Amino acid sequence: MTQTPSTDILTRLESTIASRRASPPESSYVAQLHARGLPVIARKLGEEAVEAAIAALAHDREDLVGEAADVLFHLLVLLDARQIALADVLAELERREGMSGLDEKAARTE
Amino acid sequence: MTQTPSTDILTRLESTIASRRASPPESSYVAQLHARGLPVIARKLGEEAVEAAIAALAHDREDLVGEAADVLFHLLVLLDARQIALADVLAELERREGMSGLDEKAARTE
Amino acid sequence: MTQTPSTDILTRLESTIASRRASPPESSYVAQLHARGLPVIARKLGEEAVEAAIAALAHDREDLVGEAADVLFHLLVLLDARQIALADVLAELERREGMSGLDEKAARTE
Amino acid sequence: MTQTPSTDILTRLESTIASRRASPPESSYVAQLHARGLPVIARKLGEEAVEAAIAALAHDREDLVGEAADVLFHLLVLLDARQIALADVLAELERREGMSGLDEKAARTE
Repeated sequence: MTQTPSTDILTRLESTIASRRASPPESSYVAQLHARGLPVIARKLGEEAVEAAIAALAHDREDLVGEAADVLFHLLVLLDARQIALADVLAELERREGMSGLDEKAARTE
Repeated sequence: MTQTPSTDILTRLESTIASRRASPPESSYVAQLHARGLPVIARKLGEEAVEAAIAALAHDREDLVGEAADVLFHLLVLLDARQIALADVLAELERREGMSGLDEKAARTE
Repeated sequence: MTQTPSTDILTRLESTIASRRASPPESSYVAQLHARGLPVIARKLGEEAVEAAIAALAHDREDLVGEAADVLFHLLVLLDARQIALADVLAELERREGMSGLDEKAARTE
Repeated sequence: MTQTPSTDILTRLESTIASRRASPPESSYVAQLHARGLPVIARKLGEEAVEAAIAALAHDREDLVGEAADVLFHLLVLLDARQIALADVLAELERREGMSGLDEKAARTE
């Protein structure tokens, strides 16, 4: 009966991001990213993932938690910018779920 | 009363990844990644994020859905490899949720 | 009278890459990359740099040499694909050379 | 008799970077990077390459020149930090030069 609170934050964040997209840039980080354009938004995702990867190797646990949160946040901003619902991405993960790990890997493009 | 089915896949995937970690590499992509070591796992996250960023700019919608799924999958593998629960990352996103967008940005490390 | 052999390889490689661009994909890795398109070429640079970064942290010296070579190679392929001469990039480095390190940093975009 | 001026900047920059490594961080960007540690230096390379990749796709020619220069600069900082001479990386490129493009690709790790 209880919800899984853990992952609801992602759908909530998705809505927040969509609503802030058209805010004045002075008041919203998401609006600032949009004002700078899609290349900057795309770049941020790549950069945050690099930072998460490095934090994992630097064995900085707290840092990795923060960087992983940054990856999720900027992934949502990028999906929103390209008008893709998080649900579509999760559906893709569900689709792969039925496959064995190695079938799944083969199904992915390189 | 109904759950949000959309995001449960992530917690399910987290469990699957944890259970496959010790599988024989022949039968599991996750086990193969572990056999290759943490640097390879970290690298995969960076690479998949770069691929997602590029797909977003190439305006390839279907490709972006697949690459975003890859980012989430490999983020979960990396968190699991460093023994960090997805819930900890989501809790960090919730912690930031209370802040305004710009406060939130200031609260993040560079 | 002796040349600096160390860096001439880069200009030689630049010519080779330009000449292979239009080769049949079966016979040339560069032609294969071109057949796959600019997004793939761009992506490769990002991926190779992530691999170099990870190799540096993994303290794998030989691996880092190889990955750094991959970064240089794919940077040249990307520049060629966008019709930018390596000389233009080196001229930009020379331009910055006159500045102190911190002025130089300030002169770069974020 | 004339040198190839175009690529000498890289060896000159390599020396400059080595000499600045131990400068006071207030006066040198390289020293600042070192004060922040190897993970930050490694991360910068990944980030700059992502930025170059994005600039290439955004068809921003001037931006790509600048980002490519950033990639080269931060690659040199990373090599220096790990005590690898640029000459070793260039020698690796020369070693591959003898091979055909596809042999060369096969010779590289993944």
